[in-house]
Amino acid sequence: MSLDNAALTIHGDSISGNCLKVKFVANRLGLPYDWVEIDVMKDQTRTLEFLAMNPAGQVPVAMFAANGPLAQSNAIILHLAEGSDLIPQDAFERALMYQWMFWEQYNHEPSVAVLRFHRHYLKKTDIDPALVTKSEAALTLMNNHLARRSYFVGSRLSLADVALVAYTRFAHQAELDLANWPHVQDWVRRIEDDLNIEHAGE
Amino acid sequence: MSLDNAALTIHGDSISGNCLKVKFVANRLGLPYDWVEIDVMKDQTRTLEFLAMNPAGQVPVAMFAANGPLAQSNAIILHLAEGSDLIPQDAFERALMYQWMFWEQYNHEPSVAVLRFHRHYLKKTDIDPALVTKSEAALTLMNNHLARRSYFVGSRLSLADVALVAYTRFAHQAELDLANWPHVQDWVRRIEDDLNIEHAGE
Repeated sequence: MSLDNAALTIHGDSISGNCLKVKFVANRLGLPYDWVEIDVMKDQTRTLEFLAMNPAGQVPVAMFAANGPLAQSNAIILHLAEGSDLIPQDAFERALMYQWMFWEQYNHEPSVAVLRFHRHYLKKTDIDPALVTKSEAALTLMNNHLARRSYFVGSRLSLADVALVAYTRFAHQAELDLANWPHVQDWVRRIEDDLNIEHAGE
Repeated sequence: MSLDNAALTIHGDSISGNCLKVKFVANRLGLPYDWVEIDVMKDQTRTLEFLAMNPAGQVPVAMFAANGPLAQSNAIILHLAEGSDLIPQDAFERALMYQWMFWEQYNHEPSVAVLRFHRHYLKKTDIDPALVTKSEAALTLMNNHLARRSYFVGSRLSLADVALVAYTRFAHQAELDLANWPHVQDWVRRIEDDLNIEHAGE
């Protein structure tokens, strides 16, 4: 899509991989936006003003001057990237991109992102062992998939990579050592380079 | 999309709302398919044969003769319905459809579907109270959204309704009485009629 200045405001928390996805895609596509910082730890997603934008009380929210609010990180990046090279033109590759984006939100984020939040931000010591097992299983599945591929779908960067790198690049903050999943480690660096963002794990 | 006979095999468990979504969409669009019943309770998603199709070990899997396996219910229905009237033509309505589909997999399914599974199939008596709270919150959010709308997005049936009705129509099996969420109750009947399927809750 194309956007005028001030047409898009991203309400997000800079420590959230889900929010950073939106920033990465907007930057990659050269879309102008304003960023409003929302501190989840300070319950700024629980205010009446925020809940009016997103009753689910979750960041990110993309507020479009023309259309109103849009929630769910992967829905936002699908909308921003429509018609761009971040979405495969081939119908089945596009379907596989959707598959990985739903897998990310159903399997990966609820394990890897939650484990990172508990360990790095809440400094919890009584970690649910199931959270560690599920996180390791998600990374192993990714590592197997990447053993013979440079990108999750096809042979180039797509939204599947953006969605999955968002929290994988913070694996060390979940105390998951990506050296144990070397194809994932290589892929994280590749995607960070493609997106022109810093190497979070180094 | 259009499909020849025998071009699509759906591997699914008939008690799973996620699997029924795929059936509903294929039937609605008149797409031919074979159905292979997979019994999750008998660990038929844990066989080497199944894991070769979907390493995540989850149903449904759509096996396309031309392209191979595709997992994640919402990715499958997006692929099947491409170019049909189940996907809004307007770009922002389409984005809102994605939003509700991701919300379904992130918030609704992990609460309502899991609560149903624990109560109706596992006959558990030690139910996690958080699961009940989250399920009720999901239904309340839906009820508020539907107070002034007949469908989740725009003014006609879309994949957002199909995705959300899949487990909502089994709310009674989760011991959630939809009479407490009357707009949801009316919407469930409307979508069941639109899809030409039985009224599960009656």
